[in-house]
Amino acid sequence: MNSSVGRTCWAIAEGHIPGESNGPAPQMTSHETACILNASQETAKVQITLYFADRDPVGPYSIDVPARRTRHVRFNDLDDPEPVPRDTDFASVIESNVPIVVQHSRLDSRQSELALLSTVAFPVN
Amino acid sequence: MNSSVGRTCWAIAEGHIPGESNGPAPQMTSHETACILNASQETAKVQITLYFADRDPVGPYSIDVPARRTRHVRFNDLDDPEPVPRDTDFASVIESNVPIVVQHSRLDSRQSELALLSTVAFPVN
Amino acid sequence: MNSSVGRTCWAIAEGHIPGESNGPAPQMTSHETACILNASQETAKVQITLYFADRDPVGPYSIDVPARRTRHVRFNDLDDPEPVPRDTDFASVIESNVPIVVQHSRLDSRQSELALLSTVAFPVN
Amino acid sequence: MNSSVGRTCWAIAEGHIPGESNGPAPQMTSHETACILNASQETAKVQITLYFADRDPVGPYSIDVPARRTRHVRFNDLDDPEPVPRDTDFASVIESNVPIVVQHSRLDSRQSELALLSTVAFPVN
Repeated sequence: MNSSVGRTCWAIAEGHIPGESNGPAPQMTSHETACILNASQETAKVQITLYFADRDPVGPYSIDVPARRTRHVRFNDLDDPEPVPRDTDFASVIESNVPIVVQHSRLDSRQSELALLSTVAFPVN
Repeated sequence: MNSSVGRTCWAIAEGHIPGESNGPAPQMTSHETACILNASQETAKVQITLYFADRDPVGPYSIDVPARRTRHVRFNDLDDPEPVPRDTDFASVIESNVPIVVQHSRLDSRQSELALLSTVAFPVN
Repeated sequence: MNSSVGRTCWAIAEGHIPGESNGPAPQMTSHETACILNASQETAKVQITLYFADRDPVGPYSIDVPARRTRHVRFNDLDDPEPVPRDTDFASVIESNVPIVVQHSRLDSRQSELALLSTVAFPVN
Repeated sequence: MNSSVGRTCWAIAEGHIPGESNGPAPQMTSHETACILNASQETAKVQITLYFADRDPVGPYSIDVPARRTRHVRFNDLDDPEPVPRDTDFASVIESNVPIVVQHSRLDSRQSELALLSTVAFPVN
């Protein structure tokens, strides 16, 4: 496998962390995830910028994904420069110094039975 | 981030607003959403045209998405030139003067436990 | 809107009509759908070929989608040249004489609460 | 249908087999699936490599998909060179000697009502 699996910029237009959850934490906590695959031979320096409906973008959030590893980033866990607000619409742009693949997923456990969604993010570059 | 995040024309072939809902409004109301990210430095002038099974297309529905903002447009809320019928199959084409990213989602709460779907829309141009 | 919205060949690798359902028919019957948008000025002559795990492909199933219309085709309803078997894995290739957009969805109501999935099909040509 | 339906390398950044299930096996067992369509005239020799968060990649897992057939591969069933761990994040890269189409799905039955997700995998080459 060579180092060209994926793209260096991705966008996720849908983002929303439900404010409520049912079931045992952390696996059943409502969450929003960016699953990142770095199949290259170098650490991916990933920067996430969040866009909102009514204020300026926030970021970058910096994340390293080691070479030949995957990292499933929960937006719930991002806290630098600031936590991601719950029950708030957002979108994200994800940039990397090496090609990566990004897939977006959500687990929604606001009601007693969970719901899931997932889609490959949009490859910008 | 430059102004070239996304495309200027998108299509969503699946569209259907369930006519029934369970749970508190508005968050648990069954809805169909086009999540739009405008990462550019200019206001996006967005025009949505709806296609139906058995009558001529309706639109355009005009929506502004400010520069560097996201807007999660509920088809439920569109009412000019006319409301979007419930329990009716439709599709949509979404055009913009600047590049945007569009993701399609639905929350279906016809039954007591919600279901979700989401996919990046098809980039036409 | 010109006639070049979409592609002329699409593939859906996932296909499966659950054999059981709960809730009132037809809206809560478990179903697999190919949502087709024809934004062109001509009738789309669509041909669907089904692929299976252990026998030769079946088709084509022929469907017309009028100009500037959408049609949400339930695989459950296809019966010429033969019905689509339930509880059986399949895949599909969808060809058209004019560009179309195809999105794949499933409603699964085998249990008392429905589940949904959706994704834009893969644009082959 | 010619032999050029799809691509020869695909990536799925999201992977996770839930460790628990409810309902009758095998149809209601929580599972993660790569649905593969081989519309070509030749057997597809498919090789899957799994990526993890904290250890080296594992693989290849070798799978044949006969000509003009589909195969819905459950990651649950992969066991050579080793089984896929449950409740563990992973990602996958799927390579083939002939063009194929890959779609990723999950059925999650950890709670009494199932949830579904699906997306076309990312076409790398």
